[in-house]
Amino acid sequence: MSDRIYNFSPGPAVLPETVIKKAQTALWDLEGSGIGVMEHSHRGAEFTAVLDQAEAACRDLAGIPDTYSVLFMQGGASSQFFMVPMNLLTGNDTADYINTGSWSKKAIKEAKLFGSVHVAASSEDENFSYIPGGDSVQFSSDPVYVHFTSNNTIAGTEFAGEPGAPKSVPLVCDASSDIFSRPFDIARYGVVYAGAQKNLGPAGVTLVIIRNDLVERAPQDLPSMLQYRTHVKTGSRYNTPPAFAIYVVGQVLEWIRNFGGLDKMAEYNQAKAKLIYDFLDESELFYGTARPDSRSKMNICFRAKKSELEAEFIAQAAKKGLAGLKGHRSVGGMRASVYNAFPAEGCEALVAFMKEFERTNR
Amino acid sequence: MSDRIYNFSPGPAVLPETVIKKAQTALWDLEGSGIGVMEHSHRGAEFTAVLDQAEAACRDLAGIPDTYSVLFMQGGASSQFFMVPMNLLTGNDTADYINTGSWSKKAIKEAKLFGSVHVAASSEDENFSYIPGGDSVQFSSDPVYVHFTSNNTIAGTEFAGEPGAPKSVPLVCDASSDIFSRPFDIARYGVVYAGAQKNLGPAGVTLVIIRNDLVERAPQDLPSMLQYRTHVKTGSRYNTPPAFAIYVVGQVLEWIRNFGGLDKMAEYNQAKAKLIYDFLDESELFYGTARPDSRSKMNICFRAKKSELEAEFIAQAAKKGLAGLKGHRSVGGMRASVYNAFPAEGCEALVAFMKEFERTNR
Repeated sequence: MSDRIYNFSPGPAVLPETVIKKAQTALWDLEGSGIGVMEHSHRGAEFTAVLDQAEAACRDLAGIPDTYSVLFMQGGASSQFFMVPMNLLTGNDTADYINTGSWSKKAIKEAKLFGSVHVAASSEDENFSYIPGGDSVQFSSDPVYVHFTSNNTIAGTEFAGEPGAPKSVPLVCDASSDIFSRPFDIARYGVVYAGAQKNLGPAGVTLVIIRNDLVERAPQDLPSMLQYRTHVKTGSRYNTPPAFAIYVVGQVLEWIRNFGGLDKMAEYNQAKAKLIYDFLDESELFYGTARPDSRSKMNICFRAKKSELEAEFIAQAAKKGLAGLKGHRSVGGMRASVYNAFPAEGCEALVAFMKEFERTNR
Repeated sequence: MSDRIYNFSPGPAVLPETVIKKAQTALWDLEGSGIGVMEHSHRGAEFTAVLDQAEAACRDLAGIPDTYSVLFMQGGASSQFFMVPMNLLTGNDTADYINTGSWSKKAIKEAKLFGSVHVAASSEDENFSYIPGGDSVQFSSDPVYVHFTSNNTIAGTEFAGEPGAPKSVPLVCDASSDIFSRPFDIARYGVVYAGAQKNLGPAGVTLVIIRNDLVERAPQDLPSMLQYRTHVKTGSRYNTPPAFAIYVVGQVLEWIRNFGGLDKMAEYNQAKAKLIYDFLDESELFYGTARPDSRSKMNICFRAKKSELEAEFIAQAAKKGLAGLKGHRSVGGMRASVYNAFPAEGCEALVAFMKEFERTNR
């Protein structure tokens, strides 16, 4: 049917094929307007409809109330690493961070430029192979927010739920790699941000959901583009937004709605991950690297007990149309990234190939 | 042949149809890789080839030597408004700005957050309808750079050449709306930046060409994403770049090369603009608003002597497939934006319609 292969890339990552087909049409002519989606004025009626649809779908899917703003920004999660503390960590306040890997560390590094940072917990002692919980998490006395990375693409770990911070403290979450893969309770959050290129769309747009009362905390003398209030006041159109990327995000959100929403998406992601983890648990050659209670449903990291076979495994898999399985350069091994749009058939194909590879490399 | 209409939008703006066709194919499957251009890892060989092609085409077209870095960034020109002074205007230095309109004013506002700004000239006295020159431009004694906006989309004016700053002072240019519409002498510039969405591609990527010695001027304690050095060191891949937008820019640059390069592009743009200006100069109903020596070849702003006819003109034009002719809300009237990819046939069609409208509204 398709000339496309199974793409296990950790991001940018596979998108729903129905969305790609729609985007192909829209590139040439958006909704019969005679002008393509890349070429419409960002102030015109056609793009306004695109932006409105994307925001409405986001609010509807995740139950985002009017007390939060939904922004489509640029610069990726890496820009939120500094924008969050630049806007919210002012004066003598302290912000708490949970360190669960490479992305958390970058967020912590940027936050320290702006104020006092307390690392409430870290799993660096065991190479970030688990999510800290229970007594190992020690919050400061009155943090202005608690920041965490809900899913860690490199180590393949994921928070099972929100960290147990005091209810009065807003959570700030880098949800780049598991946003909209499952339901979440927005009421616990001050800010949720996500680069789009894993679960939401193409690289080049960042979804930021922010509680309105936090928006006004920022100093007034920051550059205009770096104040959340600028983007809130202008409905993400202070300057020209990344129009095509927003269009694709809107279509992906619509695809999730048609799929049955976040509950159904979570069930599907659970089932997909289980296919692979179940095999890893019974395999004599392969094993998962994350602690079982901390396993990510998005990024499944694994190794071969005979590590000299790993390069061969990755190369043979690629030849079979299973691409992007190489683990992050900082940890090695293999990683199967199976975000929302990754099909269950691809997980089955991977397990079948792993079984075959194990048989021939006993 | 095409179900598309003439799109005079000031940006995002019309793109070459051959590029759109290529992008449609690449969305589904980039170069036979079995994976679409939005879905490839930004560290993989396929996207590396995309990035390399875009940079090479840029260097080749404009003769950019190795002493300059070519960056593909996010956040639009609006982010360069603050990044330039944040990185280059340090200590007790003064930067000179030429104020030729709304975009210059925004750049000046952001620069004042970081240091001393001297406005060397302004055409605000006549509603920005001209480009200041000669004795009206008074530079400060030792500016760290001279900033100007080479083309002004709202007033429809354009610098005929570089402003006459001392040769030792690097020029910094917001070239968002006329980059690669004509040749320029890179040796005079410290930084050239441009949001892509007028002459280069879709919204969501900013081309920044920066002289390497300037890159290291920035303080080291800025957020990582806000230091030019971060992007130079990582070849625009500190974080995930806007991959699809970069792909399209690369294809547009290739299209300009196939067109014959910047000299040929400039001739074509000159001829297109002349079609419209010549008619404006002979019309009894319509007139151009920019001073003739300051006229933009990209954005042709005009009014009707009977201003009550303007809304009707814009509406009738839209019905004839001439879209996006409404002037900026701050100045009113009409504006025909005829960037690189806008076809001469569209300029002819506009003039024909203006003649017809003038005849029937005598």
